[in-house]
Amino acid sequence: MKETWFYESLFPSVKLGLKVKETLVSKKSAYQKINILDTYEFGKVLVLDGIVQTTEADEFIYHEMLTHLPMLSHSHPKRVLIIGGGDGGVLREVLKHPVKEVFLVEIDEKVIELSKTYLSAICRNSFADRRANIIIDDGVNFIKECKGKFDVTIIDSSDPIGPSKVLFSSKFYRDAFNALSNGEGIFAQQTGSPFLQREELPYVYKRLKKIFPFVATFLTAVPTYVGGFFSFVFASKGIDPLNIHLAQLEKRYRKFKLKTRYYNPEIHLASFALPTHIKETVETKRNG
Amino acid sequence: MKETWFYESLFPSVKLGLKVKETLVSKKSAYQKINILDTYEFGKVLVLDGIVQTTEADEFIYHEMLTHLPMLSHSHPKRVLIIGGGDGGVLREVLKHPVKEVFLVEIDEKVIELSKTYLSAICRNSFADRRANIIIDDGVNFIKECKGKFDVTIIDSSDPIGPSKVLFSSKFYRDAFNALSNGEGIFAQQTGSPFLQREELPYVYKRLKKIFPFVATFLTAVPTYVGGFFSFVFASKGIDPLNIHLAQLEKRYRKFKLKTRYYNPEIHLASFALPTHIKETVETKRNG
Repeated sequence: MKETWFYESLFPSVKLGLKVKETLVSKKSAYQKINILDTYEFGKVLVLDGIVQTTEADEFIYHEMLTHLPMLSHSHPKRVLIIGGGDGGVLREVLKHPVKEVFLVEIDEKVIELSKTYLSAICRNSFADRRANIIIDDGVNFIKECKGKFDVTIIDSSDPIGPSKVLFSSKFYRDAFNALSNGEGIFAQQTGSPFLQREELPYVYKRLKKIFPFVATFLTAVPTYVGGFFSFVFASKGIDPLNIHLAQLEKRYRKFKLKTRYYNPEIHLASFALPTHIKETVETKRNG
Repeated sequence: MKETWFYESLFPSVKLGLKVKETLVSKKSAYQKINILDTYEFGKVLVLDGIVQTTEADEFIYHEMLTHLPMLSHSHPKRVLIIGGGDGGVLREVLKHPVKEVFLVEIDEKVIELSKTYLSAICRNSFADRRANIIIDDGVNFIKECKGKFDVTIIDSSDPIGPSKVLFSSKFYRDAFNALSNGEGIFAQQTGSPFLQREELPYVYKRLKKIFPFVATFLTAVPTYVGGFFSFVFASKGIDPLNIHLAQLEKRYRKFKLKTRYYNPEIHLASFALPTHIKETVETKRNG
């Protein structure tokens, strides 16, 4: 029998190939091409415009790091904003915390609808949680109207091409700053592979540094995101992520009885240590 | 013009694809199939039996971590043994330290010969260094005859299939233990992707724990090794790698005037922090 393989089209000279059992979804929404594939190694895989967004097998790595790292750096996050995140993975992790309300603002209704049907292993019941407010809108429009409202804002978007490009602009970052509550207000966003997407992390870091007093980079490695380390930025109005103590994180982790498969307080702090070749692309001195 | 792509054959359901400019070498040695490709994204790539071993663009990550992490954990490594490492990358990094002599024991002469010709960006002049002793032999035979001779032993081999399988046996680990000098004696070896090669790290860790008083796991991420984090084991007769202080490492790093692109003392210590799903596959409590 002929094998079916999906090859990602993110990079011109490097490809990730996944052996496919079955193509479950192949649709075009108003914003993008949406595919959901059932694969042998990674279970179900969400693909937008030819690029792997998340997979059942390794989503916990990305979603736990993008969520718990900002959430546990804040002493009492009550109101949380997620922009993007239509697969529900970040929402699921945020709801593990004792939050009052979460707004998830996704531009493409189709992604949520299809995730509910095909990726229930990722979103679980998070869309139905009474604390969750699901809004179909452009995050750029939504965030402008929110002044000082959110303790933590998480941008869970695709790369800065296509519909997500505006989520990487200085204008957006200023609005995101203003939408955070005073005091601790924390912002986090994915910035791709520092090895294969060399421009992305320094571009975002530089823009955020002009607006936020504290900005830092943290790393993980996600099997289906080719390119070695995968980077995120952390920005805050008042929290220096390099000056949080292990004991503080352990206390919060225990208090909320968090159950995680990747995240732990030691990996939280270790993820801010950068290899020299990455450190050199962002500022190295401590902020504040 | 038709594009040429190389697809790695390591995993049955996941593939790395690299766009190829030119195939420079395609040979069969007594031990394995050797290919050297010139690629668009990673420069020249060494492929053994269809599996990427090293590339010009990202070799520094793997070679620096496998070398400087054990070397800087030792207070005065004078005699070093490398088993495998025919591309010369680990040898190059070891020779940055003030060592007296290094033995490199490679089973396949062809790998060294072709690396000297095509991968000079990796081996540089390391094979010609007067401190380097290049021996063509099976590492398993060589190490048996060395009692207490080496301060640091580094296994830079391919995965435990094909000619490298014997380098992952309990018999070999006992001989490696005996070949280390008393006191600090440190051993390091690659153990693949904990995500895609699930058995490898726990298998090696368990075997080493029966022989060495101190065993720990450290991680990096290498763009051309698909599978997220890439793991190594550290084993020692007398050094607990989790109890080395940053100031100590910084002092040694400065003293030897090391020039590195990836390694720094902070990433050294951070690389021992393990995500929970990896930690659970090896012992979590501190040794000693």
